[in-house]
Amino acid sequence: METMASVGEFALIQRFFTPPSGPLPPGVVLGVGDDGAVVSVPRTQQLVVTTDTLVEGIHFAADADPVLLGQKALRVNLSDLAAMAAQPRWYVLSLSVPGDTPVVWLEGLVSGLRQAAQRPAGEVVLIGGNLTGAARGSLSITITLLGLVGRDRAVTRGGAQVGDHILVTGTIGDAALGWAIQRGILTGVAAADQAALLQRHHLPDPPVELAIALQESAFSRSAIDLSDGLIADLGHLCRASRVGARVHAERVPLSPAARRQVEQQGPALLARLLGGGEDYELLFTVAPSAVAAVHVLAEMMGVPVTEIGVITAGSEVVVTHQDQPLMVEAGGWDHFGGV
Amino acid sequence: METMASVGEFALIQRFFTPPSGPLPPGVVLGVGDDGAVVSVPRTQQLVVTTDTLVEGIHFAADADPVLLGQKALRVNLSDLAAMAAQPRWYVLSLSVPGDTPVVWLEGLVSGLRQAAQRPAGEVVLIGGNLTGAARGSLSITITLLGLVGRDRAVTRGGAQVGDHILVTGTIGDAALGWAIQRGILTGVAAADQAALLQRHHLPDPPVELAIALQESAFSRSAIDLSDGLIADLGHLCRASRVGARVHAERVPLSPAARRQVEQQGPALLARLLGGGEDYELLFTVAPSAVAAVHVLAEMMGVPVTEIGVITAGSEVVVTHQDQPLMVEAGGWDHFGGV
Repeated sequence: METMASVGEFALIQRFFTPPSGPLPPGVVLGVGDDGAVVSVPRTQQLVVTTDTLVEGIHFAADADPVLLGQKALRVNLSDLAAMAAQPRWYVLSLSVPGDTPVVWLEGLVSGLRQAAQRPAGEVVLIGGNLTGAARGSLSITITLLGLVGRDRAVTRGGAQVGDHILVTGTIGDAALGWAIQRGILTGVAAADQAALLQRHHLPDPPVELAIALQESAFSRSAIDLSDGLIADLGHLCRASRVGARVHAERVPLSPAARRQVEQQGPALLARLLGGGEDYELLFTVAPSAVAAVHVLAEMMGVPVTEIGVITAGSEVVVTHQDQPLMVEAGGWDHFGGV
Repeated sequence: METMASVGEFALIQRFFTPPSGPLPPGVVLGVGDDGAVVSVPRTQQLVVTTDTLVEGIHFAADADPVLLGQKALRVNLSDLAAMAAQPRWYVLSLSVPGDTPVVWLEGLVSGLRQAAQRPAGEVVLIGGNLTGAARGSLSITITLLGLVGRDRAVTRGGAQVGDHILVTGTIGDAALGWAIQRGILTGVAAADQAALLQRHHLPDPPVELAIALQESAFSRSAIDLSDGLIADLGHLCRASRVGARVHAERVPLSPAARRQVEQQGPALLARLLGGGEDYELLFTVAPSAVAAVHVLAEMMGVPVTEIGVITAGSEVVVTHQDQPLMVEAGGWDHFGGV
């Protein structure tokens, strides 16, 4: 069986990462194959940069499907750019892979990356990277993703204003439930619900295009991607904006599978879902006058959007469930402690 | 003792990576602390991007000095930008660190990064990153470095022309000897030479400013950084330029410590030094008419520069030692096989 070590670094790069000949993709002056890549940033645009790593044993299991991993590795970075409302354009990939890893694993990863790179506005282009060995059991995948946003148009965590409505895309908590199922912590879930929740754990779907459309319409005053847990991330946004927030837990959108778990286990589980991480949905705030237009835009783009609360004066994030206080462990997804 | 896990991801980021308040560094619109960083690329410039990873057990030992590691992690990336003749400006850092790592280790790493970030043209600014856990023994450090170069002025591997002189900066083979000393493969070296060679292994010193000056004077037609080994890297450059090369091994610049080893062990060791990696010096090619001016410029900037051969027609890289063919294992530094 071909392994990474038997084929070797240079042949692997040649086989999997050398771009097809032909015209260069938009903005790329020099792609994979030199000491660095060169790209051109239009003068009306600024560059947005983010980086995220998936580590074996921390973010995924040794037997994880490499195609899903490739997709997830790029998508978690797309989620960060969505939060900034930037158009994803180019990425570099740093892979540390044990030498005895089969080459078909790399083939799967590259295929997953390519799938995730296909976006409505065009392909996100691999422009460089690094491939190196690693100790067994410590495979890691780092992506640095570059995007473009109009000059001074990036949406940040710092723009929320008192009275803004707080909205989230998609549904919350599915990934945390999928993670718990994967680890054997959550059992007794119906097969169809298990599949749905695992899918959401493996394959986040950040609303990149909606985030850009919201920014282009100047609807979103502030935004953050939900990676550490809804309440933890809302806390980050509130600190950056020097405001507080009130969240109505019963309004937080749940998938049918998650709703069935909450109905069985009660509000304590709901609280855990608001603390759980890796939703990779967008939380954003909008002036009251813009809320109706945001719903129209989101519906046009086919992205579910739900109001879950309001930005308040002060600095506290208050969560209630049917007007009773709800305690959420909002420490976030600490990658040294796990959840 | 404080460890990464006991302090936690968010507190560590707060303590070590949150920039001082005050005016933003040049070009930075939004730095560490949001979902992504935002930077501004002047319209006369293009963006150059490179990434490089150091992995425990592959690139460094478990007990490596974190201050030196921090310096090296940034400097190996600076070397790639030097090859492109780009001015280093901003970087993102992805750290995967076992939870039981002492916090003083991180303190050392950050201090090393800050030292390496101080350049004559200004500080290379950390604008973002990612901090996560890792299995014991599999610490890794990935940096993506961003730089600027004048529009269509990046120096590539592809510009060498037949008749160009081949030049290298600094001295060659010290890092490979230092690596061999570190691993206990090379013994019996005098203490002072050991120290000098180990220093060069731990602390590469890529000639960033000379590379930029050569580009600004339009002297360098092609360039590559020496990371895989002189002959392997020259091979990469020749393939990209569709040319061959002739190298006179006896002209390759050696440090006094390396020269003493070659005098003891003969041309076979010289051949290994030309195959060994991690010099992080610059190899570049220059039209014959420009060679004299290059020497003047290099002398002004205090960087030793040596002519080692000439670009030829064809596709072969021929290495001779006093006009006899010298066999160099030019597979390069394959990070699955080691050297």
